[in-house]
Amino acid sequence: MAFVEFELSKEFRDRFQHALDERDGPFIYESLDGVNPADITSLLYEFNSEESKYVLDLLPLEVRAKIINDLDPDTRKTFLKIYEPKEISEFVNLLDSDDAADILNELPIKDSEEILTLLDADLKSQVIDLLRYDENVAGGLMAKELIKANVNWTVVQCIDEIRKQAENVTKFYTVYVVDDWDKLLGRVSLQRLILTDTRTLVKDIYDGDEVVAVETYLEDTEVAEIMKKYDLESVPVVNTQGQLVGRITIDDVVDVITEQAEEERQIMSGITEDVEEDDSVWRNTRARLPWLLIGAVGGMMSARFMGLFEGEISRIAAIAFFIPLIQATGGNVGIQSSSLIVQSLVNPSFVEEGLLKRLGKVFSVAVLNGFCLSVIVFGGNALVFGYDGLTWVVSIALFCVVIFASFVGTVTPLILNRFGFNPALASGPFITTTNDLLGLAIYFLTISILL
Amino acid sequence: MAFVEFELSKEFRDRFQHALDERDGPFIYESLDGVNPADITSLLYEFNSEESKYVLDLLPLEVRAKIINDLDPDTRKTFLKIYEPKEISEFVNLLDSDDAADILNELPIKDSEEILTLLDADLKSQVIDLLRYDENVAGGLMAKELIKANVNWTVVQCIDEIRKQAENVTKFYTVYVVDDWDKLLGRVSLQRLILTDTRTLVKDIYDGDEVVAVETYLEDTEVAEIMKKYDLESVPVVNTQGQLVGRITIDDVVDVITEQAEEERQIMSGITEDVEEDDSVWRNTRARLPWLLIGAVGGMMSARFMGLFEGEISRIAAIAFFIPLIQATGGNVGIQSSSLIVQSLVNPSFVEEGLLKRLGKVFSVAVLNGFCLSVIVFGGNALVFGYDGLTWVVSIALFCVVIFASFVGTVTPLILNRFGFNPALASGPFITTTNDLLGLAIYFLTISILL
Repeated sequence: MAFVEFELSKEFRDRFQHALDERDGPFIYESLDGVNPADITSLLYEFNSEESKYVLDLLPLEVRAKIINDLDPDTRKTFLKIYEPKEISEFVNLLDSDDAADILNELPIKDSEEILTLLDADLKSQVIDLLRYDENVAGGLMAKELIKANVNWTVVQCIDEIRKQAENVTKFYTVYVVDDWDKLLGRVSLQRLILTDTRTLVKDIYDGDEVVAVETYLEDTEVAEIMKKYDLESVPVVNTQGQLVGRITIDDVVDVITEQAEEERQIMSGITEDVEEDDSVWRNTRARLPWLLIGAVGGMMSARFMGLFEGEISRIAAIAFFIPLIQATGGNVGIQSSSLIVQSLVNPSFVEEGLLKRLGKVFSVAVLNGFCLSVIVFGGNALVFGYDGLTWVVSIALFCVVIFASFVGTVTPLILNRFGFNPALASGPFITTTNDLLGLAIYFLTISILL
Repeated sequence: MAFVEFELSKEFRDRFQHALDERDGPFIYESLDGVNPADITSLLYEFNSEESKYVLDLLPLEVRAKIINDLDPDTRKTFLKIYEPKEISEFVNLLDSDDAADILNELPIKDSEEILTLLDADLKSQVIDLLRYDENVAGGLMAKELIKANVNWTVVQCIDEIRKQAENVTKFYTVYVVDDWDKLLGRVSLQRLILTDTRTLVKDIYDGDEVVAVETYLEDTEVAEIMKKYDLESVPVVNTQGQLVGRITIDDVVDVITEQAEEERQIMSGITEDVEEDDSVWRNTRARLPWLLIGAVGGMMSARFMGLFEGEISRIAAIAFFIPLIQATGGNVGIQSSSLIVQSLVNPSFVEEGLLKRLGKVFSVAVLNGFCLSVIVFGGNALVFGYDGLTWVVSIALFCVVIFASFVGTVTPLILNRFGFNPALASGPFITTTNDLLGLAIYFLTISILL
């Protein structure tokens, strides 16, 4: 009974590393015996591939399979390079079809072909079927393992069949009901089966009304939305003929949701590749440089633009003082606006209010925020720098910047979304760069009109 | 069988609104009959509280309970204001204890007390027990409904008991095994029970090794991490004496993960309240103003700082041209750095590499990025503005800004985290404002040294 997580104390790690250096098999085996595979996985992240393989080879095959299945895909891809196809096939044979297909997808095609020939016949045909689908659609997410019953069976036939099928299905929540052509009709819960007289027909007790199914080509994020919306722990997958071909469980969807959140954060922070802090220096640099360059090009365009106002700046240097204020405000407003829109695009309960009504509201909020900011900044400037024409110009420009940046922040994600790009792009350096230029233009336009 | 989601066409909505205006009960009842409650929930988001209540009162009590349970908490809080406590108690009686407790928690204490007295005795005592816990710990997330079996029972006794208990438990995945004092010992799967001879003792077939349990006071985000790590569909909750007091299912955890991601996005985009685009103008303004003000104060500090260099700017106006470039780069680098650190703080597989090694890597990446940027900007500036001392100054300052902003972006979230603040704070306007000031300081320092 594991109440507490396995303790990864510094002492234990050092002792373990020592045992590894000595290739002290008995100590390693003993200290990992009975430990949850997920905890062993965490431990292995600290050692290199050879060391990890040495540890894994000491463990029972089922534990090994679980651990390799738990690894994050990038780590696994590197790790499995030191394995022979035959070794891989041994533990892949113990996995569910969806996990097996995921691992084969990560391997070089030559290796995955070889491994396929080594798999058990059932799993092999299931995996071949799954390999046809893209990773990010329902077909690529589903597992073939599920329990189904013919609608014409009796409850006792059904329970018998469950006994047979259950050996291959590690997690099951529901029994799917199909007709003679495998067309999905509905489902019946295990509870219901246990509570019903054994001679009853499945036909008379199955639930055909409220069953939500997804088709193989549905995108993974949409599958996640549907499962969240209908509060499902598993969802059946059907092909275009309505035949039951697989099922997706909520734990797969948890991964989809987590990945989506991570991807969004990366986009928002201007990182172009799926990179982690502990990746190589080179990879980190490559992931970061593109947006930095785009930002720098924006900055050089700003410089070029200000060149047009060299005379004004030489005359009144104070004009330059307020550039950071104008730009910071434009940037912040833009990101706030785009982030709210992205949120409402992601949130399925959102109701299309009509563009005009939405923009009207954006305008109202911008006017209120812009007014408050301008007044406060006016007061601050008058106090610190004394009161003159520039004080007015800064506050008027600031007000306009808030309004324009709100619109750009609102409209850009809508346009990106319309043209099939990820609207979250508009919450990152893209919108900031645009608003920097826009803010500058408004500021100098105000100057050239009013000063 | 609902393959496709219920269609919310514009025509249907208009027709429905018309029926609502006419209070055309029969049409409404008929068009919603057999529709999945989750779809009715989406529909109701378009109507006001009185209209929604009118629709709900037409529907069967179970459907009503499901829909009200589906509403997002903010909407529900407002919506239930037009309900009498007695009406609320009717559908709360049909909910699971955790959902019932959530709803009572949202109501004024006077109403929730009154509703408590109207609940069925069992549910009442369960809810009272749950109300003791904070919303964001395991105790506040768990439901009391679960199926447990005494370790000394036989399989047949166990299945009998399941039949009895299952009436109150809508979703169950596993049977928890306890001793005579309700102490959690392990679990046994329904599959295992079905596959085993009925005279076997639970003692001999239950799984006591790999069961992960959480204690009532564990934070919800940690519960989510544990369920993800160990790939659990449900987790038992125990009190400090190790007694089984409830269970948490993965669908509750999906909500926790989703909320966490949303909260983080808001923090990153400088929004201080949990606000949505369709909230009131006033609420939107209030959520956005604080960070805009902080940004503006930063901007005014920048202005004050540049005041010290008024002479230089008047002499060489071109100095001002490159302020946006310097600041945009500093801002982008800072957000990238902090975002990577936040990600590794969130990711539990992260291994503490030692501060020095991490900072060394941050430094290497910054040097590489800084070097590339400076060279490219140098070339661009020489081309566009011609080559002079300022071209050198800008590139040198840019290089330093990349390095300093990387450090600030890396260290700030670590410090925030150390002192118990949400490190994601450092991915938002906070880090941008800091880096704006820092960038400016570095730029003008370089100018005063080199120019």
